[in-house]
Amino acid sequence: MNSAENERFQRGLAKLKEIDGEAGERVVASLADIAPDFARYLIEFPFGDVYSRPGLDLRAREIAVVAALTALGNAEPQLKVHLRAALNVGVSRQEIVEVIMQMAVYAGFPAAINGLMAAKAVFTGLDDLTAAQSMSSGQLGVAG
Amino acid sequence: MNSAENERFQRGLAKLKEIDGEAGERVVASLADIAPDFARYLIEFPFGDVYSRPGLDLRAREIAVVAALTALGNAEPQLKVHLRAALNVGVSRQEIVEVIMQMAVYAGFPAAINGLMAAKAVFTGLDDLTAAQSMSSGQLGVAG
Amino acid sequence: MNSAENERFQRGLAKLKEIDGEAGERVVASLADIAPDFARYLIEFPFGDVYSRPGLDLRAREIAVVAALTALGNAEPQLKVHLRAALNVGVSRQEIVEVIMQMAVYAGFPAAINGLMAAKAVFTGLDDLTAAQSMSSGQLGVAG
Amino acid sequence: MNSAENERFQRGLAKLKEIDGEAGERVVASLADIAPDFARYLIEFPFGDVYSRPGLDLRAREIAVVAALTALGNAEPQLKVHLRAALNVGVSRQEIVEVIMQMAVYAGFPAAINGLMAAKAVFTGLDDLTAAQSMSSGQLGVAG
Amino acid sequence: MNSAENERFQRGLAKLKEIDGEAGERVVASLADIAPDFARYLIEFPFGDVYSRPGLDLRAREIAVVAALTALGNAEPQLKVHLRAALNVGVSRQEIVEVIMQMAVYAGFPAAINGLMAAKAVFTGLDDLTAAQSMSSGQLGVAG
Amino acid sequence: MNSAENERFQRGLAKLKEIDGEAGERVVASLADIAPDFARYLIEFPFGDVYSRPGLDLRAREIAVVAALTALGNAEPQLKVHLRAALNVGVSRQEIVEVIMQMAVYAGFPAAINGLMAAKAVFTGLDDLTAAQSMSSGQLGVAG
Repeated sequence: MNSAENERFQRGLAKLKEIDGEAGERVVASLADIAPDFARYLIEFPFGDVYSRPGLDLRAREIAVVAALTALGNAEPQLKVHLRAALNVGVSRQEIVEVIMQMAVYAGFPAAINGLMAAKAVFTGLDDLTAAQSMSSGQLGVAG
Repeated sequence: MNSAENERFQRGLAKLKEIDGEAGERVVASLADIAPDFARYLIEFPFGDVYSRPGLDLRAREIAVVAALTALGNAEPQLKVHLRAALNVGVSRQEIVEVIMQMAVYAGFPAAINGLMAAKAVFTGLDDLTAAQSMSSGQLGVAG
Repeated sequence: MNSAENERFQRGLAKLKEIDGEAGERVVASLADIAPDFARYLIEFPFGDVYSRPGLDLRAREIAVVAALTALGNAEPQLKVHLRAALNVGVSRQEIVEVIMQMAVYAGFPAAINGLMAAKAVFTGLDDLTAAQSMSSGQLGVAG
Repeated sequence: MNSAENERFQRGLAKLKEIDGEAGERVVASLADIAPDFARYLIEFPFGDVYSRPGLDLRAREIAVVAALTALGNAEPQLKVHLRAALNVGVSRQEIVEVIMQMAVYAGFPAAINGLMAAKAVFTGLDDLTAAQSMSSGQLGVAG
Repeated sequence: MNSAENERFQRGLAKLKEIDGEAGERVVASLADIAPDFARYLIEFPFGDVYSRPGLDLRAREIAVVAALTALGNAEPQLKVHLRAALNVGVSRQEIVEVIMQMAVYAGFPAAINGLMAAKAVFTGLDDLTAAQSMSSGQLGVAG
Repeated sequence: MNSAENERFQRGLAKLKEIDGEAGERVVASLADIAPDFARYLIEFPFGDVYSRPGLDLRAREIAVVAALTALGNAEPQLKVHLRAALNVGVSRQEIVEVIMQMAVYAGFPAAINGLMAAKAVFTGLDDLTAAQSMSSGQLGVAG
């Protein structure tokens, strides 16, 4: 990888961290042994090229991807990553639910129901994490 | 249709006019002879129920539908209606192009290329209309 | 919800019970916390509007949905609900298997195989339930 | 092709004539130069094997295929063939419209609208043919 | 089944063994109770008719099916069967990974990522099997 | 675009010429006004990155893409480009027809029929071009 490629990779990595946080990094890590070049492409093209473009803010980009993956209905792991990403860039839970519900119109009720179940799993996972952290810090408080 | 149903239909019709203008009305008209009840459902459920909900603005809703229909890749007439609708509710041509380009990541390059060709056809159609109108009013000006 | 809307909801709920029995109710319940309005739409539009229409009997409607969900191949939970629904409205196991097999022609062998595996799981589940119930009543009989 | 294969082919050809009439034959003819063996498979497997099976009547089979092709949304020529086939085996226009409308629930409104437009084209084509034939026989009457 | 049909079935069964080995046989076995005729069709049409044709070697056929099932993204069990089949007929792991990566261009990154995860699971499963076998024979060696 | 990016673009452009010849260039040209950056990405990522990789020859890559686009069934313009590309890199007409026929197994008969019709159109177009050129050079011969 020469310096220019490296610049594109670094830009993508920074954008990935901004959007997907740990979830995106786990996807990249899971690709490292089977297809390391693909892990690099995933950072360079979607994140280094597309998501880094001006002209559409990250909220709109995440609304678009949540809509598309709900409608396609065959990429649940990626939908869950982007549900977290949407929250990370400032889309509210209510807005996410509205986007998914709207997909019933364009891709049918099953696609929307499965999207809502994915959102429920992600939101519950985050709530459990928050609860665990606050309980943990509460215990620390008691301990302190 | 009783008064409550009628209220839902009227709300949907108003929302359809706000979003899709004439294009949406043409779709409804084309359904009138083959499936008049379906024309009514199309106004009542997507527009009277879903698009009328608070919690997600129309710009975000049109970004979501342009993304989804580009990704699905099998609904060109509806994509074109919503490309015009997106412009109507304040999504810029540049933003539309960004949303469609982004779909290359989630549904592949052919889906994005076909979406861009649909956008090009819609934008050109609108430009031709504008040119025809300004030429027409120019001639009137000369004539006056 | 005004009285007219309420009428549509009640009609949908009655139709849902007639078709899907408990399975449909579980879907609605699972949506209650994440998207309560969507749970209501699911009763009102598909069941209150579409399935309540005259002009096509419920056997034909369930054959249509089993065919469509098998062909789409990305909505297994909903396919399983409608496999039970099809049995509820009088489609035989043999007819269900015929519909799914036919989908190999229109959507490929993998879609048909996955549909058959879903049918096998549903039929086995129902047989186990019947066996458990008859064993239970048998024991009661012995006990009595 | 030995005699047993020939039997399967003949059974398929008879079934194809029963179901699709001329439309099916045109599809087979269009394949004859590019892939003659595929034209034979199309008669043997779908029609000689699947459609010839007992256990599901042809009305139910055509309802299933109209549903599936409407939901998939990427096979308009084949959907049109089967809209005519459905009529041929006794599914009414109203029942066809009901099946397609129902697909809005499972594959979204665009799939249903495009299916309804295909039905409208097929029904109009048949009406025009009937009108032309009755006008033609009327003229013959005058001529006679 | 008469002798000619039997010939087609035998040819398909031999081809299935050549391509898919045990994995294909397990699929056929899983269909035996729910749809025994479909298990027979699966051997006769795909394997007895299509895969037995000259004009395209098995390596190319397995590359085609790995590409298609990765792109469709809704048939993971069948993709896994054909990942093993591809290895069986001489497609290397590297070539398989290249085919799946290429699908990012035509069906999007999620489809490619899910395909790579399926390949990783299949390759790991085979490696574990090899390791278990060599350990087992090693122990035998020690034992001997 | 800095020098490293430029290198990737040049490599992609050379690969595109090798594979798709004029057809690919027309696609790029058609994108130039609506989304010039996307035209660049199309050269850089699919052709500069993916198709330029060692580890899978171009014949196998074109077999993979013909299979995938036939199976997806919603990208006819791109399928036609790649049918020509497949011929360009040495896949025979017979092999192309075999790949498409095989897709009946994985994506259904309609997908395969529509793929065969696309192949027929492409092959006929090339034959007409050859006939026109040989007639033209014949006339030149006469003229000379």
